[in-house]
Amino acid sequence: MSIVVIGSIAFDDVETEAGSVKNALGGSALYFSAAASLFSQVHLVGVVGEDFPCGELDFMRARGVNTDGLKVVKGGSTFRWSGVYETDMNKRHTTNLALNVFNDFDPVLNDECRQAEYVFLANIDPELQERVLDQMHCPKFVALDTMECYIAQKPQELRNVLKRVNLLFINDSEAQLLTGISNVVAAADALLDMGPEYIIIKKGEHGSLMASRDMFFTVPAYPIHHVVDPTGAGDSYAGGVMGYLARMGVHDSATLRRAVVYGGIVASFLVEGFSLFSLKDLSLDTIEERMTHFRSLTAF
Amino acid sequence: MSIVVIGSIAFDDVETEAGSVKNALGGSALYFSAAASLFSQVHLVGVVGEDFPCGELDFMRARGVNTDGLKVVKGGSTFRWSGVYETDMNKRHTTNLALNVFNDFDPVLNDECRQAEYVFLANIDPELQERVLDQMHCPKFVALDTMECYIAQKPQELRNVLKRVNLLFINDSEAQLLTGISNVVAAADALLDMGPEYIIIKKGEHGSLMASRDMFFTVPAYPIHHVVDPTGAGDSYAGGVMGYLARMGVHDSATLRRAVVYGGIVASFLVEGFSLFSLKDLSLDTIEERMTHFRSLTAF
Repeated sequence: MSIVVIGSIAFDDVETEAGSVKNALGGSALYFSAAASLFSQVHLVGVVGEDFPCGELDFMRARGVNTDGLKVVKGGSTFRWSGVYETDMNKRHTTNLALNVFNDFDPVLNDECRQAEYVFLANIDPELQERVLDQMHCPKFVALDTMECYIAQKPQELRNVLKRVNLLFINDSEAQLLTGISNVVAAADALLDMGPEYIIIKKGEHGSLMASRDMFFTVPAYPIHHVVDPTGAGDSYAGGVMGYLARMGVHDSATLRRAVVYGGIVASFLVEGFSLFSLKDLSLDTIEERMTHFRSLTAF
Repeated sequence: MSIVVIGSIAFDDVETEAGSVKNALGGSALYFSAAASLFSQVHLVGVVGEDFPCGELDFMRARGVNTDGLKVVKGGSTFRWSGVYETDMNKRHTTNLALNVFNDFDPVLNDECRQAEYVFLANIDPELQERVLDQMHCPKFVALDTMECYIAQKPQELRNVLKRVNLLFINDSEAQLLTGISNVVAAADALLDMGPEYIIIKKGEHGSLMASRDMFFTVPAYPIHHVVDPTGAGDSYAGGVMGYLARMGVHDSATLRRAVVYGGIVASFLVEGFSLFSLKDLSLDTIEERMTHFRSLTAF
């Protein structure tokens, strides 16, 4: 089944202990698409300026990313983000941010996108997430990501859209901010009270947990000796989860658990390179190899 | 097989978001003994003052803790520690510390203790750890814990004793401090270079990982909705690990992995109450129930 993703597309300048990269492909929608397309067909909805090298998305198109929903604004400039990571890669600082054409992003979805069965609302304004959701025909499974600025500045709008989604992706510090509860296990319960059927709390190098009213799942991260660039890890994780779910077409407990593990595996590849370089040549076979290895690392 | 543990015995005053407790039993050797004795016979080596209510250890004696190695100093006062935890239970502040009789702790082991097959050197001065080790007859498996002050103040002494142990227990921030490496997966390799055959890095609510030259194991923590008091979690974790290993009498990879999981399960009970209250009435059956539940929470 196919997935539609609505989110940002950006040029990133990133500096980590491992080196730096300039004008690299970034943005939540691109990271998600590069990951999800390893498993399923993806419709990418986003906006870029005339400066965007659309040919660089060919590797995604080759594995089934439909870019008809990509709007190019004549004379406009693409969203730009610059960030520096500390030695402890869990801490990063935004050194420059220029929304550019993303500032007026308010997509009208084409028919193909409206008919997608799976929807991923990346970390954009919750009002925009809701307007996108209003355009969907009859989605089977809707997932949403968010971020600190929307939790802080648009809490009610976020709560409105949360009532309409099946799955919330959120990281541990965001979960604490949104619920006011520091224990993430208890925070998961409070998040379920806000409406979503399933919650996934991402904990970066510490793995993730998933909860529903009658299910709880906790899993460590695939161990990575040398993290090069964690930018986009959360979005590629979500891409792995949603891609696998759409591929399977069901979301029973066993499928969801495996989806969460696949999400972690895809993110583990992502952080081994800058930008989404590591996902370009990734194949399902390589993912399966790491999945098998992960089973051996976690068996008891 | 039996274990000898050498460490601190204390009165703790603890304040957390869940409440507070005064003059509660504490210290690494007590937490370890309460946990390990659920699985195996334990010889407790430590020192207390005349103010110590030895009868409060009866529950441990009842399950096989031999306290012949407990020295009571006439006219002396027992080690006292006071601490306050922030809302985020990962952060704590020591508000008072009085070593008292523990200041001169330099035990001479009795014959029974010297003949124990398993040794746990709790987080005491590394020179003292080495003097204890010199007294052991022919131990089968030696484990060591340490803490930030010894890593900072006695790095060479710590490295000396590390060459003589089978297993190092360390938490993630201590591992980073000792190796200078922020990535814990890479830090595990650097720790193995220092001599121990096995490394266990404890990550609190995020679980733990174990590494040897040819094995790696990663496991999440048992999810706890309401942490009451994390004091002693690391020591009771080590008690669970060592207790299970001594019970099995072997340390192949499968046994070590299960030991790590049992350690996490025992620590999950510990943090649900103040001091070591939760371990007092704990039974192997209850531990097994939680183990079964944990398998279901982590299966994929």
